Amino acid sequence: MSGGGAGGPRRLVHETWGDHAALLARSVHAHDGSVGVVRPQVIDVASPADPLPLELGGRLDHVAVTYETYGELDARGDNAVLVCHALTGSAHAAGRHGEGEVPGWWDPLVGPGKALDVREHFVVSSNVLGGCYGTTGPTSIDPASGRRYGPDFPRFTVRDMVEVQRRLLDRLGVGRLRAVVGGSMGGMQALEWAATHPERVGSLVAIGIGARHSAWAIGLNEVARRAIAADPDFHGGAYRPDRQPETGLGLARAIAMLTYRSFDSLEAKFGRERRPAEEEGLEASFEIASYLRYQGVKLAQRFDANTYVGLTRAMDDHDLAAGRGPLREVLAGMRMPSLVMGIPTDVLYPEVEQRQLLEGLPDARYARIVSPHGHDAFLIEFPQVAAHLRRFLQERAPR
Amino acid sequence: MSGGGAGGPRRLVHETWGDHAALLARSVHAHDGSVGVVRPQVIDVASPADPLPLELGGRLDHVAVTYETYGELDARGDNAVLVCHALTGSAHAAGRHGEGEVPGWWDPLVGPGKALDVREHFVVSSNVLGGCYGTTGPTSIDPASGRRYGPDFPRFTVRDMVEVQRRLLDRLGVGRLRAVVGGSMGGMQALEWAATHPERVGSLVAIGIGARHSAWAIGLNEVARRAIAADPDFHGGAYRPDRQPETGLGLARAIAMLTYRSFDSLEAKFGRERRPAEEEGLEASFEIASYLRYQGVKLAQRFDANTYVGLTRAMDDHDLAAGRGPLREVLAGMRMPSLVMGIPTDVLYPEVEQRQLLEGLPDARYARIVSPHGHDAFLIEFPQVAAHLRRFLQERAPR
Repeated sequence: MSGGGAGGPRRLVHETWGDHAALLARSVHAHDGSVGVVRPQVIDVASPADPLPLELGGRLDHVAVTYETYGELDARGDNAVLVCHALTGSAHAAGRHGEGEVPGWWDPLVGPGKALDVREHFVVSSNVLGGCYGTTGPTSIDPASGRRYGPDFPRFTVRDMVEVQRRLLDRLGVGRLRAVVGGSMGGMQALEWAATHPERVGSLVAIGIGARHSAWAIGLNEVARRAIAADPDFHGGAYRPDRQPETGLGLARAIAMLTYRSFDSLEAKFGRERRPAEEEGLEASFEIASYLRYQGVKLAQRFDANTYVGLTRAMDDHDLAAGRGPLREVLAGMRMPSLVMGIPTDVLYPEVEQRQLLEGLPDARYARIVSPHGHDAFLIEFPQVAAHLRRFLQERAPR
Repeated sequence: MSGGGAGGPRRLVHETWGDHAALLARSVHAHDGSVGVVRPQVIDVASPADPLPLELGGRLDHVAVTYETYGELDARGDNAVLVCHALTGSAHAAGRHGEGEVPGWWDPLVGPGKALDVREHFVVSSNVLGGCYGTTGPTSIDPASGRRYGPDFPRFTVRDMVEVQRRLLDRLGVGRLRAVVGGSMGGMQALEWAATHPERVGSLVAIGIGARHSAWAIGLNEVARRAIAADPDFHGGAYRPDRQPETGLGLARAIAMLTYRSFDSLEAKFGRERRPAEEEGLEASFEIASYLRYQGVKLAQRFDANTYVGLTRAMDDHDLAAGRGPLREVLAGMRMPSLVMGIPTDVLYPEVEQRQLLEGLPDARYARIVSPHGHDAFLIEFPQVAAHLRRFLQERAPR
């Protein structure tokens, strides 16, 4: 057993967009079933005899993957759907880890009768390489030193995440995937799956993402990383687990949260509402400020700063064309049925990026998530996402 | 003589948008004249006998204003145009302080034959209250203590800025203004002028701004202030002038710069271009990252952190309706001819905000600045801004 997951998964907390999301979630639940209580599994996918080479150099001799599955793999091993999570997500996509626990981040979409119907599909969701929810990453123990990797965890890419997922699927007996599905960083993984293993990806669903990370998105990640690095508690990444750079990580989250939402949704929810004057200080007393602080505190409680740095760097390196030739040709080689979803209010991955995918992919259709909520709409507008996903899988995913 | 300006103006540096802006500036200059070498003036507008009461409480017994004028005030004192600067701007709108110095921030628009034709108009530009370019603000000496105000500088609002400008104009013998013109924070001042002194504002030009600061814009300012406050060199604002919180101020600037531009313009200028590997480190080696660092360093060299905090708080408090009644009625009372300019790619003050102004102002027309450059287009697309401004002043400004 590798020590890779020894840091242990952190407590999972999911943010909802207040009553709106809860209402939508309930309205979906009313018609569909839950996968119930699920237990994350851990499996080793690399060993000294079978190390994981990394795209940017070096290798990992031990990689443990934390994953969850929902439904049953059929005898031919070809009814699997891989669901890929976003930056601060985890393997916990559906169900609950126990009574009273929060449901998985895409629970309204995964279950009996739901868009990802577990009566038909074997749904697999794993924490990414470099994550902090149970898969080997900066919070894991380096077997060579007996200490946490921390800032010494090697650089990794989305392609490395995909290779770890491939090894996981091999060990689970999954052959060709019926679909690979993901939004945001999850969409990067889905696209890389389709580009790297086109023969194994029966269909592709990429939501709120583009073929390569833009200067705009890189710039925002860069500022977030600088906020973390500037925190005196960061110590170049060598902080103690119980002394995280909470201020820097909170700032990084606040910057990100703004770009995950939109002008209109923030205006509708917060406008110029103010907090009581007692909170007056250097910081403005607006509700939006309080909300951003709260989001930062919450993330610092559940996430790891080195992991945030590592994952955002992997996102910045996302470029389907890198090392493969012109993007047009790369996309032309991804011939599986594809569903590209975009959100008109997404300021982080604007629709121009999905349009580029759509123009390049030979067999793609487009679905628009109509929402004021910006990028995060794929984690909020469950009925819309469910409807598009269900229809696409029914009509286009291979059986 | 008040000690208010004793901190002295910092060296003025203006950013251009590379060759593009320079080219446009030259193309404008080719047809029009410069105001030549200008010298900033300083005048006292408050004294213990005539203190400046502040909107949020307290008062200032000494206020010095640094200003520049271009052109001549006519005998009736009614050919003045007040130009209001944005967050990190100064009184230096046009001309040069000496041979080889950088021109003022709106130089292509102000001069003989230019849109703000100094053969017709007496153009006044002053550094705002709370600024760090020569008008009393956090970097000034508090006469009561003999030390810099620093974090003890009282809170002030855009309305306080306007009152300081009013006192300046009174002392200059300016009666009714032919126009008040400003973009961004300058637009807030222009709007407040029109709401506070409608009888004195012959016409209004507000560019890239709305009637009240949005949750989105407040959130971005909040994150910027938190980045400053989190810098160990900030010391709650009590830093030494030669030991500014450069990291925090640089981060604040980086966040702002992203929102001053746009997805498209950053993509076109930087895309995924990388720097040589020797700069590799925690921070990604992308050109956009280098650009943002550079912008931060430049601002930290020329601007003051407490001033940044104070001005952004004043911006967040911007709300034409505050204390005046429903916004609709406030706008309805601003009957002067008005020109609202917006930029379709402005993510910070999107066109929905200008539309609100347009719908509420009784005598307003709209002009769109077509540009990929986002909010900063009003400091880049000089020919367009000039054409709209010239036409509006010729057709609608009172003579």
